[in-house]
Amino acid sequence: MTRLVMKFGGTSMADLERIRRAARLVAAEADAGHKVAVVVSAMSGKTNELVAWTDGAGKASGKAIEGDDEYDVVVASGEQVTAGLLSMTLRNMGYDAVTMLGWQVPIITSDVHGKARILDIPPAKLETALDAGQIVVVPGFQGVTESGRITTLGRGGSDTSAVAVAAAVKAIRCDIYTDVDGVYTTDPRVESKARRLKKISFEEMLEMASLGAKVLQTRSVELAMGQRVPVRVLSSFVEPGENVDQGTIVCDEDEIVEKHIVSGVAFSRDEAKITLLGLPNKIGVSAAVFAKLAEANINVDMIVQSEKRSGDYANQLFTVGRRDAKAAADLMLSVKEEIGFDDIKVDENVAKVSIVGVGMRSHTGVAQTMFQALSEKGINIQVISTSEIKISVLIDEAYTELAVRALHAAYGLDKIGA
Amino acid sequence: MTRLVMKFGGTSMADLERIRRAARLVAAEADAGHKVAVVVSAMSGKTNELVAWTDGAGKASGKAIEGDDEYDVVVASGEQVTAGLLSMTLRNMGYDAVTMLGWQVPIITSDVHGKARILDIPPAKLETALDAGQIVVVPGFQGVTESGRITTLGRGGSDTSAVAVAAAVKAIRCDIYTDVDGVYTTDPRVESKARRLKKISFEEMLEMASLGAKVLQTRSVELAMGQRVPVRVLSSFVEPGENVDQGTIVCDEDEIVEKHIVSGVAFSRDEAKITLLGLPNKIGVSAAVFAKLAEANINVDMIVQSEKRSGDYANQLFTVGRRDAKAAADLMLSVKEEIGFDDIKVDENVAKVSIVGVGMRSHTGVAQTMFQALSEKGINIQVISTSEIKISVLIDEAYTELAVRALHAAYGLDKIGA
Repeated sequence: MTRLVMKFGGTSMADLERIRRAARLVAAEADAGHKVAVVVSAMSGKTNELVAWTDGAGKASGKAIEGDDEYDVVVASGEQVTAGLLSMTLRNMGYDAVTMLGWQVPIITSDVHGKARILDIPPAKLETALDAGQIVVVPGFQGVTESGRITTLGRGGSDTSAVAVAAAVKAIRCDIYTDVDGVYTTDPRVESKARRLKKISFEEMLEMASLGAKVLQTRSVELAMGQRVPVRVLSSFVEPGENVDQGTIVCDEDEIVEKHIVSGVAFSRDEAKITLLGLPNKIGVSAAVFAKLAEANINVDMIVQSEKRSGDYANQLFTVGRRDAKAAADLMLSVKEEIGFDDIKVDENVAKVSIVGVGMRSHTGVAQTMFQALSEKGINIQVISTSEIKISVLIDEAYTELAVRALHAAYGLDKIGA
Repeated sequence: MTRLVMKFGGTSMADLERIRRAARLVAAEADAGHKVAVVVSAMSGKTNELVAWTDGAGKASGKAIEGDDEYDVVVASGEQVTAGLLSMTLRNMGYDAVTMLGWQVPIITSDVHGKARILDIPPAKLETALDAGQIVVVPGFQGVTESGRITTLGRGGSDTSAVAVAAAVKAIRCDIYTDVDGVYTTDPRVESKARRLKKISFEEMLEMASLGAKVLQTRSVELAMGQRVPVRVLSSFVEPGENVDQGTIVCDEDEIVEKHIVSGVAFSRDEAKITLLGLPNKIGVSAAVFAKLAEANINVDMIVQSEKRSGDYANQLFTVGRRDAKAAADLMLSVKEEIGFDDIKVDENVAKVSIVGVGMRSHTGVAQTMFQALSEKGINIQVISTSEIKISVLIDEAYTELAVRALHAAYGLDKIGA
């Protein structure tokens, strides 16, 4: 019998009726002969409520609460509740289910509370229970340090828990049940002709997740890629039997027979463009700018230094997450004299649109198609960045949907067979 | 430095503002030089919500969920949340606080899930933290089995957790902060002249708790008595400084200088009177009746066999909790032929009123005063039961308040100095 990991997100655990539906899906896989481990999120909204309480407790004296191990004690409780409820429901359907909390498995993590990383999952207890025919329910998002303190992985960490458990027990696959029925060529709310992908490679999924597709958490994709755990994303709003051959499988590129040149169009509005005007055109100046930003933990995404005004001065342009824009601008102003630039401009009305596809490696003209499609719609490209399998452009935010639809059509994504 | 245990109930943990007030009370005791361990309940209402969810999960197929270890996984989460929030609040006030969950302490319990009993609390971890100057916050109501499964103690179990922690760390006292400001001579809602007792003996408190006073859970008083842990009951709706010399101390009888003959009047409406008419007056018949009830886990309180109809037949009268009345009556009817009685009567319009006091041991005429006071008000006594330090009477429920007030006056309880 093969082992299978199934993961249910917050909307799939939102109330008892949804928990019962999840239980039916789990039971069906057990009936089909799988040894099943289930990873669950907290009821949707519950984690937000718990976090708000910790904010309130933390604000008693105005001090920060980040990295507080007591934050994890509070917030980890949400998944404990749904895990117990799912186990009870399965038992009442006649299945032998058992909850194993983070400290019981154990899921050993680093001690960076609130943002811990999974270090190790000794598989013995999980395997013993699975081999004894038990359905093991594990709360996602939580773990325990070597010294026995509860940790949480940071928001969205339940996907990562599921993949890590799948790797630990050598599961044939990790099925992520969520509120969408798979990975699409782009967001169907923007392009109604978006098609569900039957398969996508780890590398493409990783780019898509990083570039704004919210289907899977980036870290979970990294882990699946590193551990070679096939992941299937599919809808939890189905009954047993309806989930056969559904969803999108995220797997090794080698296992994808019909490769697309471009698999998807991703976009993100969480962008801000910062321009430093009149920067001395000297060695080390750019390095100084980005060193300051790195020290302040501000992530810089796209960088371009192109608009020279004269031989001695250049303009330095970079993008950061929109929520970091003010902090980045304030930081730059505080070192204006030290670095020596004339002025700073912050533009939050920008969006990043990207095309992703492993086929780019072997096909030429992909970028040309992109630029032409955007040009035909009168969309100005402000910044370009590329990797081996993606091209991103920064554009005026107002053109986001237009750009997405234009690119979706240009690469024939509306004709991909699901 | 002496060790002190402080316990806060659900109303004292109901929201962040109340948690902050509890934190101020804890901080004040730490400032006064105590090494403090705190035991907390879940936010009021939270446990009911969690239990309702487990009921829902359990009802998926209509099966019972009692004794389900997954019930405990779900329900124990409520105290985990308040423990973490209180620790965070204390930290933000500048105190070194740490939560230790049931499995971290560990609080070792039996494996009767949902109704576990504390077996052992190895004090090493608690003592190490306390001696290092940490305020240790322990969620009440929860523990862990020897095999590492989460347990809960049953409703009201947080008082018991607090007393057990106090015994484990040899605390000078266990302060139970609750929504009343002490133990009263009777319920102030019934008799406005009720007075707060400065001290009450363990034995009296145990009788009061068993007889319907809801201030402390019976099991916690038993434990405090067995372990000789002084308990103080006081209001959590005070600010630091206001709690000095407040509340009621439950302690050894020897430590009470000014002993009262009667310390309190307790009453319970959770009573039902069952009469079996025309029972054969033979050896073994009564034993058969009570054996049947015991097998069905129905607790019998008062028993009297007095109303003989003739030499061969008697009427057997006993009382049970009102919620057990129907089950007891149905059970008796099912064995009517076997035991051989004529008819059964069930009366749910009864109440039990009791006087409690260690002074009864050495004073005569206490019962006489009770019967006379009730007689003067025209209250008929249906059944009487006594122990060394209490006398209980069963009366028509309609006379409950009248009886309580009459007895309160008859023993001069309105003149006790708090």
